[in-house]
Amino acid sequence: MSAFDGLGAIEPQALFEGIAARAVHGDRITLAVVELDPDSVLPEHSHENEQLGIVLRGSLTFRIGTEERLLGPGETWRIPPNTPHFARTGSQGAVVIDVFAPPREDWEAAERLKGRPPRWP
Amino acid sequence: MSAFDGLGAIEPQALFEGIAARAVHGDRITLAVVELDPDSVLPEHSHENEQLGIVLRGSLTFRIGTEERLLGPGETWRIPPNTPHFARTGSQGAVVIDVFAPPREDWEAAERLKGRPPRWP
Repeated sequence: MSAFDGLGAIEPQALFEGIAARAVHGDRITLAVVELDPDSVLPEHSHENEQLGIVLRGSLTFRIGTEERLLGPGETWRIPPNTPHFARTGSQGAVVIDVFAPPREDWEAAERLKGRPPRWP
Repeated sequence: MSAFDGLGAIEPQALFEGIAARAVHGDRITLAVVELDPDSVLPEHSHENEQLGIVLRGSLTFRIGTEERLLGPGETWRIPPNTPHFARTGSQGAVVIDVFAPPREDWEAAERLKGRPPRWP
């Protein structure tokens, strides 16, 4: 198995309505490029995985615990394990990177979306 | 301490000659935006941290173990613990994201570079 891959070759998976991810899984980390449709909602949820991320394109309102912020490209977040978080996009949508440790093994079951080219880069 | 941050507020650190990183550290993960000057060299090295990454801008030739590839935006890598890796940029340089688990505590000692604005986004 190659050490290298590319977004164009990775099948996206539907995480929530209007939110899809292309993921690279290591033994300790999952790195995902996540596309959020315009006016989409990441419902409040939490998980044991620590999560860090950064906006690549567009913008989104992110809430972690009780702290809420409107984020654009180059802005980052850090979500401790088991901390409720929520996000919503505006009319532009967003593309972000999210990384998780341990890896998101629970994504194995997420629906694969066929024939959808990456929106970024 | 806020869950949020931004590249413009994070002091870059010199990792190697011509290579600087802005890092967000969690308890399990470091997420870094790494700027590589044109014609710079990441000398072959290895570390116990697993490392995944993706090119944001520009291009670089990456070697992991014995596998070598020229990578552009949207292309990814996965470096197992203790695996030698090397990279060099061409005339454009590159900006990449690297993530590590466990976090890069050894970067604590890396030189801080003052007054240098982010090259990306």
